[in-house]
Amino acid sequence: MTQSDSKYRIYPTSFASDNNTGVHPAIIEAIVAANVGDTIAYGDDPYTERAVDVFRQHFGKDVEPFFVMNGTGANVTALAAITRPFEAVVCTDCAHINVDECGAPERVAGCKLLPVSAPDGKLKPADIESHLFGRGDEHNAQPRVVSLTQATETGTVYTPEEVRAIADTAHAHGMLVHMDGARICNAGAALGTSLREITHDAGVDVLSFGGTKNGLMLGEAVIFFNSDLAADYRYYRKQATQLASKMRFIAVQFTALLEGNLWLENALHANRMAALLAESVREIPGVEIVQPVESNAVFAAVPKTAISSIMEHSYFYLTGSDTRAPVARWMTSWKTTEEDVHVFATALTAAVRHAGKTE
Amino acid sequence: MTQSDSKYRIYPTSFASDNNTGVHPAIIEAIVAANVGDTIAYGDDPYTERAVDVFRQHFGKDVEPFFVMNGTGANVTALAAITRPFEAVVCTDCAHINVDECGAPERVAGCKLLPVSAPDGKLKPADIESHLFGRGDEHNAQPRVVSLTQATETGTVYTPEEVRAIADTAHAHGMLVHMDGARICNAGAALGTSLREITHDAGVDVLSFGGTKNGLMLGEAVIFFNSDLAADYRYYRKQATQLASKMRFIAVQFTALLEGNLWLENALHANRMAALLAESVREIPGVEIVQPVESNAVFAAVPKTAISSIMEHSYFYLTGSDTRAPVARWMTSWKTTEEDVHVFATALTAAVRHAGKTE
Amino acid sequence: MTQSDSKYRIYPTSFASDNNTGVHPAIIEAIVAANVGDTIAYGDDPYTERAVDVFRQHFGKDVEPFFVMNGTGANVTALAAITRPFEAVVCTDCAHINVDECGAPERVAGCKLLPVSAPDGKLKPADIESHLFGRGDEHNAQPRVVSLTQATETGTVYTPEEVRAIADTAHAHGMLVHMDGARICNAGAALGTSLREITHDAGVDVLSFGGTKNGLMLGEAVIFFNSDLAADYRYYRKQATQLASKMRFIAVQFTALLEGNLWLENALHANRMAALLAESVREIPGVEIVQPVESNAVFAAVPKTAISSIMEHSYFYLTGSDTRAPVARWMTSWKTTEEDVHVFATALTAAVRHAGKTE
Amino acid sequence: MTQSDSKYRIYPTSFASDNNTGVHPAIIEAIVAANVGDTIAYGDDPYTERAVDVFRQHFGKDVEPFFVMNGTGANVTALAAITRPFEAVVCTDCAHINVDECGAPERVAGCKLLPVSAPDGKLKPADIESHLFGRGDEHNAQPRVVSLTQATETGTVYTPEEVRAIADTAHAHGMLVHMDGARICNAGAALGTSLREITHDAGVDVLSFGGTKNGLMLGEAVIFFNSDLAADYRYYRKQATQLASKMRFIAVQFTALLEGNLWLENALHANRMAALLAESVREIPGVEIVQPVESNAVFAAVPKTAISSIMEHSYFYLTGSDTRAPVARWMTSWKTTEEDVHVFATALTAAVRHAGKTE
Repeated sequence: MTQSDSKYRIYPTSFASDNNTGVHPAIIEAIVAANVGDTIAYGDDPYTERAVDVFRQHFGKDVEPFFVMNGTGANVTALAAITRPFEAVVCTDCAHINVDECGAPERVAGCKLLPVSAPDGKLKPADIESHLFGRGDEHNAQPRVVSLTQATETGTVYTPEEVRAIADTAHAHGMLVHMDGARICNAGAALGTSLREITHDAGVDVLSFGGTKNGLMLGEAVIFFNSDLAADYRYYRKQATQLASKMRFIAVQFTALLEGNLWLENALHANRMAALLAESVREIPGVEIVQPVESNAVFAAVPKTAISSIMEHSYFYLTGSDTRAPVARWMTSWKTTEEDVHVFATALTAAVRHAGKTE
Repeated sequence: MTQSDSKYRIYPTSFASDNNTGVHPAIIEAIVAANVGDTIAYGDDPYTERAVDVFRQHFGKDVEPFFVMNGTGANVTALAAITRPFEAVVCTDCAHINVDECGAPERVAGCKLLPVSAPDGKLKPADIESHLFGRGDEHNAQPRVVSLTQATETGTVYTPEEVRAIADTAHAHGMLVHMDGARICNAGAALGTSLREITHDAGVDVLSFGGTKNGLMLGEAVIFFNSDLAADYRYYRKQATQLASKMRFIAVQFTALLEGNLWLENALHANRMAALLAESVREIPGVEIVQPVESNAVFAAVPKTAISSIMEHSYFYLTGSDTRAPVARWMTSWKTTEEDVHVFATALTAAVRHAGKTE
Repeated sequence: MTQSDSKYRIYPTSFASDNNTGVHPAIIEAIVAANVGDTIAYGDDPYTERAVDVFRQHFGKDVEPFFVMNGTGANVTALAAITRPFEAVVCTDCAHINVDECGAPERVAGCKLLPVSAPDGKLKPADIESHLFGRGDEHNAQPRVVSLTQATETGTVYTPEEVRAIADTAHAHGMLVHMDGARICNAGAALGTSLREITHDAGVDVLSFGGTKNGLMLGEAVIFFNSDLAADYRYYRKQATQLASKMRFIAVQFTALLEGNLWLENALHANRMAALLAESVREIPGVEIVQPVESNAVFAAVPKTAISSIMEHSYFYLTGSDTRAPVARWMTSWKTTEEDVHVFATALTAAVRHAGKTE
Repeated sequence: MTQSDSKYRIYPTSFASDNNTGVHPAIIEAIVAANVGDTIAYGDDPYTERAVDVFRQHFGKDVEPFFVMNGTGANVTALAAITRPFEAVVCTDCAHINVDECGAPERVAGCKLLPVSAPDGKLKPADIESHLFGRGDEHNAQPRVVSLTQATETGTVYTPEEVRAIADTAHAHGMLVHMDGARICNAGAALGTSLREITHDAGVDVLSFGGTKNGLMLGEAVIFFNSDLAADYRYYRKQATQLASKMRFIAVQFTALLEGNLWLENALHANRMAALLAESVREIPGVEIVQPVESNAVFAAVPKTAISSIMEHSYFYLTGSDTRAPVARWMTSWKTTEEDVHVFATALTAAVRHAGKTE
């Protein structure tokens, strides 16, 4: 079989997801360069040690970073390490842990999720309080963690102050704060802050640090800002099947991403492309941008009849449960070009116009 | 920090594990070559489709292969897919799933393990029957799967006839056969059979196909020889955190390994190096080879006083629960050279001699 | 220690819960009468066989009833038997399984819950459809069961037509219907239907049949209306710790409840007492009945300042997450008398009046 | 249907299990007497408070007793409360938790079991050490608890010194000791000790205290001798479905059992009947008693051809996995009479003699 027979396509550019994009060349180079000699597996090697050091330069010398293989793995192992089986996690109803991990948090981390409605993807301090009525009552799973996603699943971004307000509320009630940072670099780039300012300094206790969506091949990190919480993490990581043997090949990707400015350049670029895309489609009749474009995502209501036509050009996902009024999610990446955006916007314009004519 | 400050070492060659070795150059090349264009994530891409096709060339056109990230992930998701929560898995007491996965099968697959004593690492048909007394009784977890490891954790290899005998017994009792093939290529190379002859043709129902230990960077496969069993596998894979987004970079490694003879060349070489190592150390006084050397492992009792000295040369693991009589496990890989073996054997001879003098 | 030293009280009557009441005398008699001779444990005894037969007289000769020990046990084992680990259960946000079982469904049954908002405690067919967007997508836990509570946690009752509409929607999407019938007798009594009409005949697949709240000492049943679903139930029951050894003492309680009309008399009485209570407090200034009184529960907003005073008379629970506007839940039982209601209403009137004066 | 139509029987006496026997009259009386007034559910009532006090009189004023519904529930919730998901429990291969709870410890408590061979049912200190090789290694589930059964599943009894030796070894390695005391009263009666001497005073940390097999209707207790370990127990109990609402009816059974000497009288009697049974069958040709008769169990090899005949008289269980050489387990109870033993032994003699003739 040759690839030309495939039922699947290779797209020049996809707006379906930032993980449809390949690997940044500097990351590939780092992988190739690490393929020297033999090292102890599972992280006891100098490459992993160096990546840990790089994370500490960003987040503080006492933080405890660990490497895992994907985002669900990062979230699930982080939550497993900071909850007991009768404890629960407050999150938004659109949180990745709630809707996109096939029940892994409940199954593998072993905690109950307490979803709250969040039309803009952002959790508020009052949402925490709405789940505190059963504290101390054995009939209720006990809220122990607040999990927020930065940037959110709808492309919005928490300010450091918003994170801090949530963390203060959580801590005041003896709860911990987990941040799903699958797109933490996009958030930092959007806010113009360091990565530390919107996490450790804002009161986050444990961070799932996303790499794959920002140019890595495969790899995420879990960072504990309170080292006590990390004491037994490696058991949870292993038990949750997230311990890679040839760890160095994950670790060096993070070193390449974070030792210089690659994390920021990639994220800034992706964010700019989303802004450009939003700008380019905003005026198309029938297209309505339905979420603030604050990171690398554009959510837009699109005429239903135009969707199959534009998907021929580039596949993308429709969101929400209302199949009569589809909302398209378009993601940009470090690799998206201005030309890609221009071509896509042009195709969308044509598809909508044609759809309008044939309705 | 530079790597020379590290508390960890890069060894020219390690006999600690076949996963201490890096990535075969042809595998690296395949990864680099796949970094073209955008593809749908999670496996709906032409690279993954091709790797699936390559597996079907080896194992049969109706088999269902899926890609995961590591060996524990392969085993756990395979077992999850073929057991229900009240069912159990018969395995040896030294099985990787029983002793090296931190309880992941019980926790994530959700099944009970029924270990049987196996001094040579090989399960026998009678071991299955010893666990059938409670069938149909609600007080007993119900044996549903037999899991055997090929090559075994002690370096021995099941013949096709031995696998068949186990499978026949299992099937006669309505049970399924899972094979942990972390080193399935080494077994096939040792036996001079195709990969299919010792799996599908011998009655195995589900195979964890190991890649990492045979030259891959990161990646394993789960292959269902009965496609009915695969119907819901992808949910179990996702829920167990084993679904990689940029799947193509795992898939192409398998294509590179299996499209030609790389799988066989790597495994044959590793096996030859183990045989050479065994030959080279067998006559050292005080060193006793305690398991048949049938694949790429050598298990040898070594004078306790010599161990720290030889570990300076190359770190390795001691096995068993008897700390007074340590048994060293030495693994060889596709990358081990005759020179590596010679240097190690020489160092071992010196260490043992010196230890004998100072006792 | 004598009971008079206790920090806890024995109340003549409690409106806190229908499980604060003791055991109906006819039930106690049945237990005493069963204490004859030895029988095989775990249900292979003539007493249990007879109770099974009695259930079949009510629900149909092909149904499969099983006995468990409490309501959480009934719900969790029922859901475990009809879901796989990647499947999910649609329920209301106030469902007992969602808020009062400390995460047992997620932990023990192993399924994800998909709560929907239900101010009156009743799930609607459209709620099911709102959770179908991710069917067939491995990222989403797969909706497999709809669970509804009859009578609901807010005291309302589904009509047979409402149950049928939900069941038809569920079945149309390949889903099953579980009913938490902790107060199923109260619902049947309220509707004037047989127990079968609002369960089996209305499309329910599995029923948690409540006994404890309707006069039993301890005991619930799980009834499968489709015997295929029951095939492996007894393993799930045992594994979930819900298999009683001296089963006959649970079984005979159900025989006593269901062989004659005791189930109906107890439930009718409790419902009448709730109606009388509602009538008696409706006109008290500042007291507002906030849910339809359709079974044996009265939910009423009560002036916050009156609560501690009236609780001196009879302890009860406050519901909801808004601590500034408490809603009292008052439950009646087979044992509540008109005099009890009168005394309580009088005390409430006085407490509210006194509270008003001192505000 | 009348009970005479049943396919099941009521036996005058059964030697199948001490849970085939009914409820001791004094226990029934206590239940009836508790059926007065209304009390808060779930244990906040004076009856439960009194039962807690009675337990403290036996075991010490600082112990923390909790009531559950059955033995599996007691074991599973006790283990859940003192392990984390990556921790493991060392037990014998014949332990009830390992072979008779359908995988509940792994599933509900969430821990791995590490079984050790124990032909006489008794674990030894060295068995603990055999599982310590992987401590601190993330690949291995971490041994955290030793669980021993008193009296054992084979009818043997640990001396206080034997328990202490195990506890000392466990504690020296930072592990805790759980005792499955389903027949703890039989053990205490056999040893002539107080209940405290063989538990709390011998180093046990958590005890599953059995009531059902010693005359109760339904009810077990979990007692923490270190109150720190009990801090969150009630959440584990609720989540594992073991929280009874009308708790008083379980609690008063324990008060009746333990306030006077009923626990001891029942257990002494059952033990004496086992000794008498052993004496009565020991000389029957072909019958061989295969375990020391130290509590209320007799294990005897019986000619295979005699079994169906004697089972007509009284059903009993065959143990072990070797179906060609069955070992009968005969249990006695508080209700077994000398006449029962005489009749059974006579029937066994006749069955064996007849079987010999027809072979």
